[in-house]
Amino acid sequence: MTTIAGIDPRTGQSTAVAQETTTAEVAEITAAAADAAPQFEQAGRGFRAELLRAIADELEARREVIVETADRETAIGPTRLNGELTRTGYQARLFADVLDEGSYLEATIDHATDTPMGPGPDLRRMLVPIGPVAVFGASNFPLAFSVPGGDAVSALAAGNPVVVKAHSSHPATSLAAFEAMTAAARRLGAPDGVLGIVFGQAAGAALVADPHIKAVGFTGSLTGGQALLDIIGRRDEPIPFYGELSSLNPVIVTPGAAAARGETIGAGLAESFTVSAGQLCTKPGLVFVPTGAAGDRVVAAAAETVGGTGAPVLLNERIFTSFGEISSRAEGSGAVAVLARGGEPAGEGFAVTPLLLGVDARDLTAQVTEECFGPLTIIARYDSDAELHTALAALPSSLTGTVHAEDDETGRLSELTAILRAKAGRVVYNGYPTGVLVSWAQTHGGPWPATNTLHTSVGTTAIRRFLRPVTWQNAPEHVLPAELTESHGTIPRRVDGRLVVPVS
Amino acid sequence: MTTIAGIDPRTGQSTAVAQETTTAEVAEITAAAADAAPQFEQAGRGFRAELLRAIADELEARREVIVETADRETAIGPTRLNGELTRTGYQARLFADVLDEGSYLEATIDHATDTPMGPGPDLRRMLVPIGPVAVFGASNFPLAFSVPGGDAVSALAAGNPVVVKAHSSHPATSLAAFEAMTAAARRLGAPDGVLGIVFGQAAGAALVADPHIKAVGFTGSLTGGQALLDIIGRRDEPIPFYGELSSLNPVIVTPGAAAARGETIGAGLAESFTVSAGQLCTKPGLVFVPTGAAGDRVVAAAAETVGGTGAPVLLNERIFTSFGEISSRAEGSGAVAVLARGGEPAGEGFAVTPLLLGVDARDLTAQVTEECFGPLTIIARYDSDAELHTALAALPSSLTGTVHAEDDETGRLSELTAILRAKAGRVVYNGYPTGVLVSWAQTHGGPWPATNTLHTSVGTTAIRRFLRPVTWQNAPEHVLPAELTESHGTIPRRVDGRLVVPVS
Repeated sequence: MTTIAGIDPRTGQSTAVAQETTTAEVAEITAAAADAAPQFEQAGRGFRAELLRAIADELEARREVIVETADRETAIGPTRLNGELTRTGYQARLFADVLDEGSYLEATIDHATDTPMGPGPDLRRMLVPIGPVAVFGASNFPLAFSVPGGDAVSALAAGNPVVVKAHSSHPATSLAAFEAMTAAARRLGAPDGVLGIVFGQAAGAALVADPHIKAVGFTGSLTGGQALLDIIGRRDEPIPFYGELSSLNPVIVTPGAAAARGETIGAGLAESFTVSAGQLCTKPGLVFVPTGAAGDRVVAAAAETVGGTGAPVLLNERIFTSFGEISSRAEGSGAVAVLARGGEPAGEGFAVTPLLLGVDARDLTAQVTEECFGPLTIIARYDSDAELHTALAALPSSLTGTVHAEDDETGRLSELTAILRAKAGRVVYNGYPTGVLVSWAQTHGGPWPATNTLHTSVGTTAIRRFLRPVTWQNAPEHVLPAELTESHGTIPRRVDGRLVVPVS
Repeated sequence: MTTIAGIDPRTGQSTAVAQETTTAEVAEITAAAADAAPQFEQAGRGFRAELLRAIADELEARREVIVETADRETAIGPTRLNGELTRTGYQARLFADVLDEGSYLEATIDHATDTPMGPGPDLRRMLVPIGPVAVFGASNFPLAFSVPGGDAVSALAAGNPVVVKAHSSHPATSLAAFEAMTAAARRLGAPDGVLGIVFGQAAGAALVADPHIKAVGFTGSLTGGQALLDIIGRRDEPIPFYGELSSLNPVIVTPGAAAARGETIGAGLAESFTVSAGQLCTKPGLVFVPTGAAGDRVVAAAAETVGGTGAPVLLNERIFTSFGEISSRAEGSGAVAVLARGGEPAGEGFAVTPLLLGVDARDLTAQVTEECFGPLTIIARYDSDAELHTALAALPSSLTGTVHAEDDETGRLSELTAILRAKAGRVVYNGYPTGVLVSWAQTHGGPWPATNTLHTSVGTTAIRRFLRPVTWQNAPEHVLPAELTESHGTIPRRVDGRLVVPVS
């Protein structure tokens, strides 16, 4: 048996948390999840909404110990972790609202009618849960994208049991959050097996290979995602894999914006790429700034802010090592200049120096734009819109694309919008890509390699990933789900092609 | 250069149609599609609705020649082919209605507001086209599931250029339908490259591997689908593959239904599995009938109807050969008895004898239930609900599950509904699974191996397969799509969490 331990990134000190889950235990956990699935679905939307709100309550009731545990394992700091816990509870409650509102079911009724092809039957369609979902959380959000995070609560909301794989970077936090969730489930009498947790890399691989598992939610690296995709490729039954993988998040500063507010933008950029030690999936990894005096002011302001930044502690040794390697490669590339450095680390642990690099836009290469997790960004200077467009065309797709522009640059902004919209899931204007609100209109996704799905992993529509449609044809009323019976009138439904919203 | 020829299944006679598309030509066609994509999207919903209606008009204007060509290549017969052409035009026009109605965009606006996590930005989300789509049509529906079929029109409706791979079983029909579509596109001034066609297996493989292609729609065999999935697995960029693959479509006759209307059900079943020569993806391939006198009447009626059936001509040599092999294996299995045979083929071509087999439910094996394309079904006799449930549990999932039951068998029907709903995309009551209405509430899908997606390939929601979400954050009004501007009021939108439907 291998012991799973959490490591304090500030000191490197290790604390035992759990034993690695064996393959036999994984099979038991997924079998329990499969057994629980029908009962959990039948408990209905109201029950699941209650469960999600109870999970939020339990997380908040244990706020102090969860934040303390997470801080010890991640060095993220109590302020951001308290914010993350608030966000995690808010997210669970928002999915409860999604359940109450009911549109997510896509309930649709076509009454029997004559068609040009002859008489048509009575057809009633809605979305149903797909079955047990495996969730692999992220190192950088030990709560909001991990055990009690968006993948887990959207899969639960959809009516699916969830088995989480505890992240090796914060196992004790995973366990604490899992205990909060199971306490809520027990209190409400949810079926056993609705929530499961496994520890260890081999257990994670067994989980993805397990025939009871019907989908996988993953937030992490392209390499980690690819390894799980390979396991799925060897399954008898292929299942959807929702991976949030890799993102450069380009930011464009137009000549107009540089001239009008270069200093503010430069300082804001420095803040955006160093916040949370640059360990956000929406960190701006590449910034396009025009050549010339106005652009110089953007760079100077960014450099000044970076210079005043301390040495943040990274989440774990792997990220620490990788940051060193990628930043050395980028620095060592002939075309790249160091524009500013933050503070030097003092003593042990995984602290690093924030780094602002510069390059000519025409010298951008895949090596220079390699995604780097941590406080590093590259400013690429461009001479003309044409040069900017050429450089953007060569970039991989991202979760986000950001542009700072002035009101009178309408033609330029339309062109940049079209370019960024083709390469990103969210286009941000006069702001920064970091900070992803959990809401109805949010998209945290984008074309490959940002993700491999046509869905968001943040926001209410993330629930669609864990549902499939079923149609009942000429069904007697008593076998239909309540939401499809003729008289049900509390959720929006499409009836004979027309969307009908209940009057509230 | 290899010549692509159509073969008359009634005679085996071959007619040259086209040259195989070279790899270089495939690359030109997909590049043209990629070039056309932004312009096609910008042409807007209204233009695309007009295009789909014009395609329907052109197909109908060429009805006589298309039906004649298709009949020569498929032996399906003018009656069903005329019906299929009507359905294909209806389907294109229904997607035009989907565009006019606009819900499919999932337009969502969250105004800037305060949240427990701080001030939230203005977020506006809707679905956008994913890019050029490759469509592989089916042998058995040379129109409705082929070049002008559901995959093609739903991808076009979504705003994507489409490149079809002409089916080897009906190349001339593919060309005739393609010419109708391009005539419509030219008439309306659609951008060049919005429609493309390729011929030949190697060209199909090159199409799926091509980096310009962003999704694949496929209707066909599990083997064919797996071959294309393997090509996708070798791409740098993974893309969604929507495969409609394999389906046994079990039918259950309850004791009550057998007693009340056994003869009618038996005759209906025989009709359902021999219509279109049993070459429908929803053909009932396995029928559960209770043992005893009432069940015997179901079997006798089915056997009598089959005995009076002629020898239909199958679509092509591959299906003809495969039918012979699978039916021989099933017949040869010790547990299986021949209950009835239809007429014997006279003369040349791909005609076969319809076949009704029987087995005890407890002797069902994977070999017996192997999907067989063509006029063959197996009646499995069961002694008890428990025996029936055990047999159903061992079956693979299907596109459909059907049950014939009486009104007073409520408990039994609820149990069977739960079992079938877990294993199918459509549950049919007191009817037959063949016949799939194109409508808002339709689902033509189901768990693996029926399909590998969480979407339908028939009905209006098939459009979701070819769209991805984008969110605009704090965007100036002029860069937003019209549907997301503040004042736009002609489509349903979710605003601040509330679904708002325009008053019509």
